[in-house]
Amino acid sequence: MAEITFFHNSMSRGQIVRWALEEVGADYDVLPVAWDAKPQALLDANPMGKIPTIIHHTTSGDRVVTEVPAISHYLAEIHPDAELLPREGEKADYFRWLFFAAGPVEQAIMSRTLNFEPDKDQQRTVGFGSVERTVDTLDGWLKEHAFVCGDRFTMADVYVGSHVDWGITFEMLPYRDSFKDYANRLRTRPAYRKSKQMDGVEVPA
Amino acid sequence: MAEITFFHNSMSRGQIVRWALEEVGADYDVLPVAWDAKPQALLDANPMGKIPTIIHHTTSGDRVVTEVPAISHYLAEIHPDAELLPREGEKADYFRWLFFAAGPVEQAIMSRTLNFEPDKDQQRTVGFGSVERTVDTLDGWLKEHAFVCGDRFTMADVYVGSHVDWGITFEMLPYRDSFKDYANRLRTRPAYRKSKQMDGVEVPA
Repeated sequence: MAEITFFHNSMSRGQIVRWALEEVGADYDVLPVAWDAKPQALLDANPMGKIPTIIHHTTSGDRVVTEVPAISHYLAEIHPDAELLPREGEKADYFRWLFFAAGPVEQAIMSRTLNFEPDKDQQRTVGFGSVERTVDTLDGWLKEHAFVCGDRFTMADVYVGSHVDWGITFEMLPYRDSFKDYANRLRTRPAYRKSKQMDGVEVPA
Repeated sequence: MAEITFFHNSMSRGQIVRWALEEVGADYDVLPVAWDAKPQALLDANPMGKIPTIIHHTTSGDRVVTEVPAISHYLAEIHPDAELLPREGEKADYFRWLFFAAGPVEQAIMSRTLNFEPDKDQQRTVGFGSVERTVDTLDGWLKEHAFVCGDRFTMADVYVGSHVDWGITFEMLPYRDSFKDYANRLRTRPAYRKSKQMDGVEVPA
């Protein structure tokens, strides 16, 4: 059995985990999951039935990890040789933007996808405030930094970068030049290109 | 100057960061922020103008951290002696549930607060699926585990636990016995009680 079991559907956020797996050079088995026929092994591991989900098989037992940013970060943790974990001076940026994407950016995309945007009063309550403010904040950072942690690519870029990459490709985020430049930097990663090919996704030129 | 500058409003999620600061025994200065008069120093650090935000002053420069789960985790990172970081076998659970709270739980609470719940088709698109499914998943875990990582309290409990604590106190989450039991365990923490007292919040009996 491979080190990791990966419950996957290539038409899902599982693509992000595939990229993360390829970045760290993980040994993994893919269990393809159809939307309407979720295997019991997945439901046992993750009662949400959500994909992607991974099981990390260790000598002291199986470890389940769900949530794309958690899985991505966990893969960096168990493969420190890939050097995708933040170094001491990079931890603030790394965790700040990882959670910024998992929270405000996800919520902004969701609210736009569902055609529901908070009014002025509600903007104080919701974590993302407004789509424009969230996008401006990310844009401001990416104008000044090549990657989440500055000059160096880390695992945070797999997750934050996938939001930006998909955001501009599928128009889920308002377009910004900094987003396009960042996505172009990410698309040169060999692991990015390999993972997209494995998932049958055309890489934008 | 203290090690950390903490932009705070005691009527906000800043309460969670106050608890985290007290758990690690951090040296910090509070900068109280009124909703309608945000200081320039906050806007410079965090263009979202969101509180809580912290600045960690180090010999190699200032580090800004935003997003409550990122700040909480970062405080555990810079204060390893507090032993609130996950140990090797705890990392899967720690990051899984930290991001589960930052993503699905936040989204579920938001959708309920704004009185907007996705229909069956939309449930496939949104990360949390449905409020009930998100709550059931968390309930399932807390029925079987005293804390996020099992028997041991970690920083993940400050963040996940605050959602549960507030969720049942303000009826932002459906009530479950496991939530009440978990909240009661958390409320015995000296740092929890001290932080609530500092913020002028009555601790539930």
